[in-house]
Amino acid sequence: MDLIVFVPIGATLALLFAAYLTFTIFKLDEGDDAMKRIAESIREGANAYLIRQYKGVSIFFLGMFIIFFILSRMGYVSIFVPFAFITGGFFSGLSGFLGMKVSTNSNARTTNAAKKSLNGALKVAFASGSVMGLVVVGLALLDLGIWYYILDWYYNALPEIERIAQITSNMLTFGMGASSMALFARVGGGIFTKAADVGADLVGKIEIGIPEDDPRNPAVIADNVGDNVGDVAGLGADLYESYVGSLVSSSALAVAAGLGIKGVTIPLLVASLGVIASIIATFFVKAKEDATQKNLLRALRRGIYVSSIIVAIGAFFIVRNVLGSNYMGVYYSILSGLIAGVLIGFFTEYYTSDNYKPTKKLAESTKTGAATTIISGLSLGMASTAMPVIIVGISIFVSFTLSGGQNDFSLGLYGIAISAVGMLSTLGITLATDAYGPVADNAGGIAEMSNQDPIVRKRTDALDSLGNTTAATGKGFAIGSAALTALAFIAAYKDSIETLVKNGGRAFEFNLSVLNPQVLIGLFLGGMVTFLFASRTMDAVGRAAGKIVVEVRRQFKEIKGLMEGTEEPDYAACVDICTKSSQKELIGIALIAILTPIIVGLLLGPNGVAGLLVGATVTGFVLAIMMANSGGAWDNAKKYIESGVLGGKGSEAHKAAVVGDTVGDPFKDTTGPSLNILIKLMSMVSIVFATLILTFGIL
Amino acid sequence: MDLIVFVPIGATLALLFAAYLTFTIFKLDEGDDAMKRIAESIREGANAYLIRQYKGVSIFFLGMFIIFFILSRMGYVSIFVPFAFITGGFFSGLSGFLGMKVSTNSNARTTNAAKKSLNGALKVAFASGSVMGLVVVGLALLDLGIWYYILDWYYNALPEIERIAQITSNMLTFGMGASSMALFARVGGGIFTKAADVGADLVGKIEIGIPEDDPRNPAVIADNVGDNVGDVAGLGADLYESYVGSLVSSSALAVAAGLGIKGVTIPLLVASLGVIASIIATFFVKAKEDATQKNLLRALRRGIYVSSIIVAIGAFFIVRNVLGSNYMGVYYSILSGLIAGVLIGFFTEYYTSDNYKPTKKLAESTKTGAATTIISGLSLGMASTAMPVIIVGISIFVSFTLSGGQNDFSLGLYGIAISAVGMLSTLGITLATDAYGPVADNAGGIAEMSNQDPIVRKRTDALDSLGNTTAATGKGFAIGSAALTALAFIAAYKDSIETLVKNGGRAFEFNLSVLNPQVLIGLFLGGMVTFLFASRTMDAVGRAAGKIVVEVRRQFKEIKGLMEGTEEPDYAACVDICTKSSQKELIGIALIAILTPIIVGLLLGPNGVAGLLVGATVTGFVLAIMMANSGGAWDNAKKYIESGVLGGKGSEAHKAAVVGDTVGDPFKDTTGPSLNILIKLMSMVSIVFATLILTFGIL
Repeated sequence: MDLIVFVPIGATLALLFAAYLTFTIFKLDEGDDAMKRIAESIREGANAYLIRQYKGVSIFFLGMFIIFFILSRMGYVSIFVPFAFITGGFFSGLSGFLGMKVSTNSNARTTNAAKKSLNGALKVAFASGSVMGLVVVGLALLDLGIWYYILDWYYNALPEIERIAQITSNMLTFGMGASSMALFARVGGGIFTKAADVGADLVGKIEIGIPEDDPRNPAVIADNVGDNVGDVAGLGADLYESYVGSLVSSSALAVAAGLGIKGVTIPLLVASLGVIASIIATFFVKAKEDATQKNLLRALRRGIYVSSIIVAIGAFFIVRNVLGSNYMGVYYSILSGLIAGVLIGFFTEYYTSDNYKPTKKLAESTKTGAATTIISGLSLGMASTAMPVIIVGISIFVSFTLSGGQNDFSLGLYGIAISAVGMLSTLGITLATDAYGPVADNAGGIAEMSNQDPIVRKRTDALDSLGNTTAATGKGFAIGSAALTALAFIAAYKDSIETLVKNGGRAFEFNLSVLNPQVLIGLFLGGMVTFLFASRTMDAVGRAAGKIVVEVRRQFKEIKGLMEGTEEPDYAACVDICTKSSQKELIGIALIAILTPIIVGLLLGPNGVAGLLVGATVTGFVLAIMMANSGGAWDNAKKYIESGVLGGKGSEAHKAAVVGDTVGDPFKDTTGPSLNILIKLMSMVSIVFATLILTFGIL
Repeated sequence: MDLIVFVPIGATLALLFAAYLTFTIFKLDEGDDAMKRIAESIREGANAYLIRQYKGVSIFFLGMFIIFFILSRMGYVSIFVPFAFITGGFFSGLSGFLGMKVSTNSNARTTNAAKKSLNGALKVAFASGSVMGLVVVGLALLDLGIWYYILDWYYNALPEIERIAQITSNMLTFGMGASSMALFARVGGGIFTKAADVGADLVGKIEIGIPEDDPRNPAVIADNVGDNVGDVAGLGADLYESYVGSLVSSSALAVAAGLGIKGVTIPLLVASLGVIASIIATFFVKAKEDATQKNLLRALRRGIYVSSIIVAIGAFFIVRNVLGSNYMGVYYSILSGLIAGVLIGFFTEYYTSDNYKPTKKLAESTKTGAATTIISGLSLGMASTAMPVIIVGISIFVSFTLSGGQNDFSLGLYGIAISAVGMLSTLGITLATDAYGPVADNAGGIAEMSNQDPIVRKRTDALDSLGNTTAATGKGFAIGSAALTALAFIAAYKDSIETLVKNGGRAFEFNLSVLNPQVLIGLFLGGMVTFLFASRTMDAVGRAAGKIVVEVRRQFKEIKGLMEGTEEPDYAACVDICTKSSQKELIGIALIAILTPIIVGLLLGPNGVAGLLVGATVTGFVLAIMMANSGGAWDNAKKYIESGVLGGKGSEAHKAAVVGDTVGDPFKDTTGPSLNILIKLMSMVSIVFATLILTFGIL
């Protein structure tokens, strides 16, 4: 029987279950009029943003479509490439869009549920997160499945090996489309959300001294919109990309590894298994009515563990049945990825949660002011890179060796790729635990703005703070899998160049030694380009936030009665500024990712490109972890102080902590998570443009 | 004729000229009693620090001596290794010690000269800097020369190739000693100076609101001591290490490149030529009595350009006479290094001087508070990595290709190594323009504390601010050359393992492909270890600064009349805290550098070590540039605001700028400059312990 058929089945199940959850959410009441009105404003802002973003992005995709179309006419890429690129982008955007639709319809309902109980609020928020998680994995499997069948049918006349090669290379373009969209969504959403957040805090909290989410703050709606467009839509597009990337890259390596169609079947089946496991696991996420925060975290964790165990067991049978018992090393690779993901999650929590020493020490450093807070936070983030690097290193070693890399190098690389699939297989549920956070955050804002009983805000705050921890864990997964996936892509790049040479391209032989100057220069450029990208994205946040600051100050100055609460601020103006300024910088940033590998390829040849990609992966991985963890720790250190220690809210220590948190905002929500997209997008661009580089390159 | 004889001649000339300059400085008057007393306090503090540091370091060196001695008895290293290691450390420390002796005797004399004229003050400070520069290059050439003759005599019976191999491999241990000492001096001095600086500023400027260098601040003497032990003694040891490293690494590659003794002669002769060029150039550094700051900078630049031109011309004849006209590519390598150094210097200035857009924009960002100041500063530093990476990349490509690397790989690597020698050849004068800065800084402090006419302080401030720019340029040189030197070391590491295998060691063949998992994991670990090292050093500064803050607060609270100026603070207590806390952390930090390559070697084998070294070089290079330039730009943005723009001193913008400057302190003076030592030290450790790793390693 053709096992691939389980892929659309898994996908359909995921989407159906997501639809069912959406239905149950929409049945709930949104609360009183004030709550409804605020929720509506947030929805409007979010929609306005997305429409504008998709307009801008459409131009980019149209441009790329035309370029690909011309290239395909000239024979440099296959005829499917322009279409695969577009669909990858479309579905990535759709994932974000659907997730956001649900989250902007769940926030007020979460507030309303929080009036009754913490557990009730958790249920709504978590259902919204689950929709997001299931939509991402469902759409990804659906699209991959459809493309698989189309391409399989079209290339039917070719012998198996060549057919698979064609299928997987077209799927890579699909991945490139998804990554491009993810970059736009992550960076654009990240700039929006952090500009609004930073701008609102800088004037509201620090200058004027009004609390967070105070309805008098003109940027407060923009801030809540940001949670949705950045932390939901951006996150969804991002993880869609990660998920697709891991599947596509392992499929691409299946041919070189001599596994043929079976090598493609494994990752797709494991992913489908993960979908089922995630659906089952959602039923394990429930807490008692009087649940403490610790119980809640345990409830979420239970979901992740249950799904991991299901995958760990099921994958054994998948590998044994598809590849046979001689290839059980592939199973251990999957297992190593699964375990590595959980371990990275644990260490991320260790470094960013105020239950542990590092964040507590960071909180202490606020006593001597903002400067020491910054120094300590950066230092914490840097130190936190050690364990994830060691874990990923062990995972690379184990998956390469156990899958048989010592005797068959390509098989070992396939093992590394499949370990990323293992790590992301439970994405349906891990993403759910991550994506529910912004819903809770929004719910808190709505509670504040609609003047609910303080107990409501307290409950949503408990969920929000939990969300910080799970968000950090989610980022650990995304970054860890990115390192493995990027390596798989680099290996696939080498394969694709070698195939081109074999099929009559210009003669070229790889010398990937780190001492080859082309590779070396590439490595340096790769390290540099991650820093340059980080600089551009942070700058964009800084600039956009600056504009918000000016606007908020203007409103407080010009709108009489605003401070007294008798006059409403002009929320839409802030939303509009965020929308515009986040879009303005996107194209420039995207061009870094797309042009760098092409230019390096033309000047330094394929060796240089390989160096570039490895350099960017190594430095980008470390930098991304550092930024995510510094940011998470600053955020939680601030919350820790707000819980009453070190003088609590309003103290000098708290002011210093707010500075740390503000610096951490673009770290953890704009630049850090975009870096993992950058390194994969650059790899895919290299593969898609391989023919061009080989034909026109100097070296 | 044996051309090497020019090496001790050049060295002797440098040291004699340094002695002459010292003599002229000591002849000058130190000024009034208050000035003398303050200068004496600074000297005492600096001496106390150095004595304690050298005590601590001695224990480390003794330990390493014993380890090397045992290893040499067991045949794992040559009999000279323990002694070469000790002398490298000794002379590196001696360079710093002598430089500091002169600088602590020049500060008050500079203040005194500033009573009369700006140019007079420049002369004294620059003479002090020149002593430092010449002592560093003089001692380096002297020691290398002596070791060369000893080893040449001892291995006289061996055929030339083997004799040179023995000579250069022993010289590498000498380099390792120098690097170890440099690490201690840079990190220890960096922690001291920044803890004092940060601590003094946090309480004095921010909390109490007294000006910089106010004699009522208990940490003010420690701050001035710090300038000497960090920015002079640390800098000297650091650049001694860079200089020796470039010479030793190119010599080590001479054998593999098939150049024999001639390949060793070239770098040593070019360095000797650079010494003469630097001495000549000092005579070109003079300004008219009514010189503006622009004139002063031009005066300093003139010195660097004159020496560069002399080297550019002279090196042509050296290469043609020693290697013959078939090897003129080696000359172009030297030239490319020389030009790259000047270009990196220019771009460093562009990013850190307030004459240009980036620092001006950074200053603008202070208007919206500390958080945006930090974000913009980090972003600036990250963006500033692009040009140096591209310049070094071109330099690698040019020197590899033109020296013939396409046909003879080893010759190309030799070309890369020799380009680092070209870059550092004019160190005598570039170091002088760098090392005069702290003297001017101290002179300003002494002027303030001894209540001189404001014009005196204004003059020393002009010199100090100029010093900031030249210091940033100097760091550019140190980091740029470090990248090239580190690559040369990595190549030398490969050679040394291959030689061991050929001479009967365990069978081993390199597979340095970036896709080999051992190399890959090494690359990741290398990227991570630079972050870990950065974290540890910044943390150390933070902790030490925290202790100073507590102490300064205590004194202001407990010493009655301190604020009114009727009672003297306990300066020595702060000096003592800085001294102790800077030493405490050193061993742990040094162990990262020494143990990491050994552990990686034992677990992942020589491929893993090569990956580690390349990864650390790539990430370390980018990180070091970023930290140095962010720090420099924050410092100058603060000075720019203090010059009166954006509200000037005391404004909210200024407060934000002070936070930026404080974060930048450990960036630019502790961690950034230590990173380049780290990457070279790890490389040398790998080479020295190569036999051990090959024998006991798992892979």
